[in-house]
Amino acid sequence: MSDPNPLREGLTARPQPKPCTVVIFGATGDLTMRKLLPALYNLAADGDLPPKTQILGFARRPKTDEEWRKEMEDAVRKFSRQTVKDELWASFGQTIGYHQSEFHDDDGYKRLAERLDQIDREHGTGGRRLFYLSVAPDQFGIIVERLKKFGLHEGKDGGWARVIVEKPFGTDSASAHRLNEQIAGTFPESSIYRIDHFLGKETAQNIMVLRFANAIFEPIWNSRYIDNIQITAGETLGVEGRAGYYETSGALRDMIQNHLTQLLCLVAMEPPTDLSADSVRGEKVKVLRSLRPMKDSAEVNENVVRGQYAAGAIQGKPVPDYRTEKNVNPESMTETFVAMRVFVDNWRWAGVPFYVRSGKRMPKSGAEIAIQFKRAPGVLFNRQDGESSGNSLVIRIQPDEGVALKMQAKLPGGALRIEPVKMDFQYGSSFGRPSPEAYERLILDAMGGDATLFARRDEVEEAWKFVDPIEESWAGKRGPAPKMCFYPSGSAGPDESDELLARDGRQWRRM
Amino acid sequence: MSDPNPLREGLTARPQPKPCTVVIFGATGDLTMRKLLPALYNLAADGDLPPKTQILGFARRPKTDEEWRKEMEDAVRKFSRQTVKDELWASFGQTIGYHQSEFHDDDGYKRLAERLDQIDREHGTGGRRLFYLSVAPDQFGIIVERLKKFGLHEGKDGGWARVIVEKPFGTDSASAHRLNEQIAGTFPESSIYRIDHFLGKETAQNIMVLRFANAIFEPIWNSRYIDNIQITAGETLGVEGRAGYYETSGALRDMIQNHLTQLLCLVAMEPPTDLSADSVRGEKVKVLRSLRPMKDSAEVNENVVRGQYAAGAIQGKPVPDYRTEKNVNPESMTETFVAMRVFVDNWRWAGVPFYVRSGKRMPKSGAEIAIQFKRAPGVLFNRQDGESSGNSLVIRIQPDEGVALKMQAKLPGGALRIEPVKMDFQYGSSFGRPSPEAYERLILDAMGGDATLFARRDEVEEAWKFVDPIEESWAGKRGPAPKMCFYPSGSAGPDESDELLARDGRQWRRM
Repeated sequence: MSDPNPLREGLTARPQPKPCTVVIFGATGDLTMRKLLPALYNLAADGDLPPKTQILGFARRPKTDEEWRKEMEDAVRKFSRQTVKDELWASFGQTIGYHQSEFHDDDGYKRLAERLDQIDREHGTGGRRLFYLSVAPDQFGIIVERLKKFGLHEGKDGGWARVIVEKPFGTDSASAHRLNEQIAGTFPESSIYRIDHFLGKETAQNIMVLRFANAIFEPIWNSRYIDNIQITAGETLGVEGRAGYYETSGALRDMIQNHLTQLLCLVAMEPPTDLSADSVRGEKVKVLRSLRPMKDSAEVNENVVRGQYAAGAIQGKPVPDYRTEKNVNPESMTETFVAMRVFVDNWRWAGVPFYVRSGKRMPKSGAEIAIQFKRAPGVLFNRQDGESSGNSLVIRIQPDEGVALKMQAKLPGGALRIEPVKMDFQYGSSFGRPSPEAYERLILDAMGGDATLFARRDEVEEAWKFVDPIEESWAGKRGPAPKMCFYPSGSAGPDESDELLARDGRQWRRM
Repeated sequence: MSDPNPLREGLTARPQPKPCTVVIFGATGDLTMRKLLPALYNLAADGDLPPKTQILGFARRPKTDEEWRKEMEDAVRKFSRQTVKDELWASFGQTIGYHQSEFHDDDGYKRLAERLDQIDREHGTGGRRLFYLSVAPDQFGIIVERLKKFGLHEGKDGGWARVIVEKPFGTDSASAHRLNEQIAGTFPESSIYRIDHFLGKETAQNIMVLRFANAIFEPIWNSRYIDNIQITAGETLGVEGRAGYYETSGALRDMIQNHLTQLLCLVAMEPPTDLSADSVRGEKVKVLRSLRPMKDSAEVNENVVRGQYAAGAIQGKPVPDYRTEKNVNPESMTETFVAMRVFVDNWRWAGVPFYVRSGKRMPKSGAEIAIQFKRAPGVLFNRQDGESSGNSLVIRIQPDEGVALKMQAKLPGGALRIEPVKMDFQYGSSFGRPSPEAYERLILDAMGGDATLFARRDEVEEAWKFVDPIEESWAGKRGPAPKMCFYPSGSAGPDESDELLARDGRQWRRM
């Protein structure tokens, strides 16, 4: 059946947002250079950035507009996914300005308010302001209070004010709650955009399309047909220059509490009533509330493995112990690897384990979700039960975004030999255009007022509530602390991770 | 999850058969040269032919062993899928002999019996004889009667005798019944191998593996999730040199009654109890018995379209009317195209139409089965119901054997645009080895005594019982004869074929 018009728009297709001013707090930081400005430039290059959008960097260091603009040009030329075109930069660069101030300095905000008014007058940005907090969480409160004090918590002249908050959003449910309270003192929940760049990736977004635009998956998307679900995110990198942050975080807070839990929610949630941000996030929260809690060290021991990388080799190159990395405590108990078994205690998922793992210094970098279906009954082609393997649907998040279905087929030839084969679909080759960076999508969504791909307050707090008892058990506060399992760099984690699945008669997909 | 040993054998894996003598009746015919000898050679080249297997051509024309051997060498060099290796031919050629006789000449069979005994003594073929009837159906009875008369209907010294029967197997249920009676007078049903080369194709065999070795398809393989099933076989060729035969056959008998009905059975049947030939064929017969019969011209009119090609162009080259082809009656009412809607009236398929079509002078050659799934509910991504399309699983039989799953995915970029994409699996590229020709598989199966891929007596007769009333209606014997619909060569058949589906709110996949 040929499709006369294969392109069609879903409900959330929308007109281009109106232009606004993007104020980036932490303008001289790494994220701004590597991600935010390149994302804004690429949006402009693709014609998606509302014309007249203005960009204003906010940071401590004294700097002229021109100086920061030049720094950003260098950064964009270095990190942009598209080659920078000089003629486009000439106009794009003109939208960039710099605003010097300490984060706690009232006067800086007073001047900011004046400057934003002036930008509105000169560029037609209509009192619309998008504040991007690319700063440490302890600055969130300081900044938003002052935004309120100087009237910047609301749009002007029919405009709006929104705030994008970068991770980490707290270190436990208490601190997340405090942060939420601080921000809620200035902005209503509907104006708060908590970023999780994993949700901005094409394939993460495609999980919902895959599940709910295709009729064949939903009937088998439950405990009757699914044996287990594996969510993996690994990277070959070690802690690199981030030990200061990482020593206070670890893999559980850095990857699992946010990114992988979000993916789990997208895979596990019930179909929402509609595609509005609150319907979708409401379903995700239901999943979080259904996660079976681990109440003490014994339960954590049974379901979670924490690991730390020892010396080893990545792609043939020797790399050191985590504990000998720069700025790492030589007796650090920070985990660089977590593997866990999670149950979603609801009707759909009763008894189906979700195996989630994330680690540094893994054999390769990548993230994927694998839906492992139950085996066909042990009859006909599946008599030798021990050797047959079930179907799996693998959603690759990165790199090489795509979907693959593993199935059994007959090997050509006389004998009836069954071999697993893969039906594969790759975003890149199928659509012939590169996926935009996650930040492009997310910034544009925030400009357009679509919060679907951002975490809602209750999502963040519920996710922390699930994670807190694990952190507390590791800290010895809920019984004897479970052990730290060391693994050689370049391996797929400690043996205990494999044993976690082996006890259930299962095994991890190869990383 | 990685598979330590991806190759594993199903139940019907089997040891190599013991050597036998293959006696080909119709040794100088087209099929022998194009298919049978090349198949035997390729089996030998792949190491699958039992060593010491002997080949004996049986035909009218006087010819020495050496002459026929040379003819066969030329034929194999021309038609083999693998390049012929001289050193292999040197030994393979020595297994080939020629036996001159009329089909009705008793003396010829007497000499044949003596010669087969001698071959057994000299080559260790152990009284095992495979008779291949590559002759017109009116010769079947003449040959098998004489085989019996000279004791060739049974193996000797613990061996066996089997007969492979080529199509066409009758022209209606009465003639098929007569042929069956004739052959049954000599051979028991378990020794009769009625060939349908479509069943020897890898993908046709893979239908069962796809369905029953994978757990994800069976739950959605029924009327609850499937909207319709389309089975198409088209060829760009016209009647070519075969008008003599084709004028008495037509597309319904030539393609639908056998090949496409067999495919329909494989797609529609219930899981058999085991993989034995009789379990599988028992399930196929149940499907045939469930086909909703068309009892008169009115019902045929409603469900079947017959067409005949008019002048047109195939790949830019003008081609003539069927009625002006050599040896075709200028007022011929032979159909070169059939499209039909068939219902399988059982629990699994209640209300699901099977649309089956086959034609000559189509825009391209190929055969496929498309499982068209119902659309996802008209909510979320599928609000604009008119434009959304359902999933489809397409099993390509030829060329380019493979499986593709069409699904909906998100177009990369900001807007939520849904576009159909394909997950694809190709036999050739996936396994890195060419599929053997159907005849290779089938001859080897017959040597090994596996009749799974051959039609059983009741299958053939039931298929004719379904087809007979259609032929009779067309002949005006069940009410006013439905009209003949002409179509330009190079088109996908007459407009009436599209209308057949349009009346149900559906359309054919593009050919």
